[in-house]
Amino acid sequence: MLITDPVDVGHLSGFTGDDSWLLVGNGRPCLLTDFRYAEQAERECPHLARVVRTKSMIEALAAVVRKRRVSALGFEPESVTVGLRARLAKGLGRRVRLAAVRGVLSDLRIRKDESEVCAIRRAVAVAESAFNEFRRCVRIGMAERRLAAELDHRMRLAGADAPAFPTIVAVDRSAAMPHYRPGDRRLRQGSVLLVDFGARVGGYVCDLTRVLFAGRIRPHVASVYALVQEAQAAAIEAARPGAALVEVDAAARSRIEAAGFGRQFRHGTGHGLGRQVHEAPALARGVKGRLEPGMVVTIEPGIYLTGRFGVRIEDDVLITPGGPEVLTHLAKDPQAMVLDI
Amino acid sequence: MLITDPVDVGHLSGFTGDDSWLLVGNGRPCLLTDFRYAEQAERECPHLARVVRTKSMIEALAAVVRKRRVSALGFEPESVTVGLRARLAKGLGRRVRLAAVRGVLSDLRIRKDESEVCAIRRAVAVAESAFNEFRRCVRIGMAERRLAAELDHRMRLAGADAPAFPTIVAVDRSAAMPHYRPGDRRLRQGSVLLVDFGARVGGYVCDLTRVLFAGRIRPHVASVYALVQEAQAAAIEAARPGAALVEVDAAARSRIEAAGFGRQFRHGTGHGLGRQVHEAPALARGVKGRLEPGMVVTIEPGIYLTGRFGVRIEDDVLITPGGPEVLTHLAKDPQAMVLDI
Repeated sequence: MLITDPVDVGHLSGFTGDDSWLLVGNGRPCLLTDFRYAEQAERECPHLARVVRTKSMIEALAAVVRKRRVSALGFEPESVTVGLRARLAKGLGRRVRLAAVRGVLSDLRIRKDESEVCAIRRAVAVAESAFNEFRRCVRIGMAERRLAAELDHRMRLAGADAPAFPTIVAVDRSAAMPHYRPGDRRLRQGSVLLVDFGARVGGYVCDLTRVLFAGRIRPHVASVYALVQEAQAAAIEAARPGAALVEVDAAARSRIEAAGFGRQFRHGTGHGLGRQVHEAPALARGVKGRLEPGMVVTIEPGIYLTGRFGVRIEDDVLITPGGPEVLTHLAKDPQAMVLDI
Repeated sequence: MLITDPVDVGHLSGFTGDDSWLLVGNGRPCLLTDFRYAEQAERECPHLARVVRTKSMIEALAAVVRKRRVSALGFEPESVTVGLRARLAKGLGRRVRLAAVRGVLSDLRIRKDESEVCAIRRAVAVAESAFNEFRRCVRIGMAERRLAAELDHRMRLAGADAPAFPTIVAVDRSAAMPHYRPGDRRLRQGSVLLVDFGARVGGYVCDLTRVLFAGRIRPHVASVYALVQEAQAAAIEAARPGAALVEVDAAARSRIEAAGFGRQFRHGTGHGLGRQVHEAPALARGVKGRLEPGMVVTIEPGIYLTGRFGVRIEDDVLITPGGPEVLTHLAKDPQAMVLDI
């Protein structure tokens, strides 16, 4: 099997550099890299065979493949482009049969081992401590873009390598758009402030959403918030080993639908996370499969009222043999979300 | 032609969302998107046909292709995966012939028009103003990671949507690695501080490198710096319309080689930039082609002395009919690079 996606290469080898491939099978796994990463590869992957290429990656691969008498080479069709496949076919020649092998690599990542869960916990600790600092700097009149910059900066200072994804900070009607990018809308007295954020630490991420209130919570907002909170609690409760993925989604969705907001919740209830922010499994309508111990998923129902406001509450949950363990600990009780400004 | 890469979709349509495709040919260009981006697509692309899909992207595409009686559909082989190509073939059926058409889309981006150059100038203004602020916050004892976070934060506050790429801040021997990621090395009195950074503003980027000195410049460092500066000036001078790309590289490289540092300059002299940090053309050994008016390239020779320090000086240059126009204006005279700490 040839592994070209840096996320999979990192997962299987521990190597954290770029532009490197991993060949698994017919002998010791072999990392193909270049002079920029030679020292790093030796340090991070002492157990692997290593080739520091001087010519093209494909020429280096062809030499290893020839030496190891590889006659069939698997690759992941979702990470190899049509152009790369053509260059591989040409460079390896007719004696090597190329075979698309779909899903094997992402399946290897779907259950997290102890060290991976530990890495996600570190990312959570960084993101949560930054969020608590961030809350204290929020002021009336600040624009979404500024607020996002302040949270990102605090995550970096707390130890994040980078934000896990572009931080969403959305005020009032902006919060009604689930995939909003921070703009110029400013926080006002009485505003709803939705913050969807995560930290990347040592190759692993977390993903959280909290809604803050600038002053008193209006009754209608409070009832929507309570409904989302209840739906989220139900989905977390349902997130047990053996539960069908659709059941977890339905646990949240049925409550929101019963209250008449079904059409205002148009995304899935959650997704796996680990090295990437979106990994298998998806918790959504129409998906197949069940939860298993070791999976880490977000649980993030939401209600979006176009032109008015939106509420989403998101936590990260580890599936353990005994049931769900919520890895994220930020307050979400509505009164705790009122900003002191 | 089917366009799936968001960078190309954005370039040809002005659309700034994600997860959307563009179909060009047999009628008005058509943007395929989903409900999340419906409003944005209407605002950003009023001149295009728009399909807000309700089923899968491929089903939506198949419907348009059928209606427009498309019999052959081109795609860029470097942005379509083997998996996607298989799904396209299945979803579009046998009546539509799929054809890999290589390089057409990136060729369309290689020469920048006036509005694109203007966007790059804005990114430069943001990055340079942030860098000047950043210089003032640098203190002895600060770690590379902290320094990178401080520069990134100032770019955001100055108006950047994000850093153009992960900012490199490298102290002393770290600076001898051209692709270093900021770590825990701290600035000391007498340190060499290499900073490679850029801002992303409105979809366009810039890319700059400066070397700062914490205190007096040692004579050996000064002579390496002067050599890199001279090599860079020679490459900028050579960056005229009609010049072979290899000649621009050779203008810098020959000076560094003549001084005996050829083996300490192991990367190309520059690369195109625009929507992405690395675009065509490459200014390096063995490449074909010539500079043309409208191209924007970096000019960034460097000398890397393993275990000691490194120097790289990088500016962004617009090729005009009259010759090179340097878009970046940060000081680079060695005395101006000494930090007042």
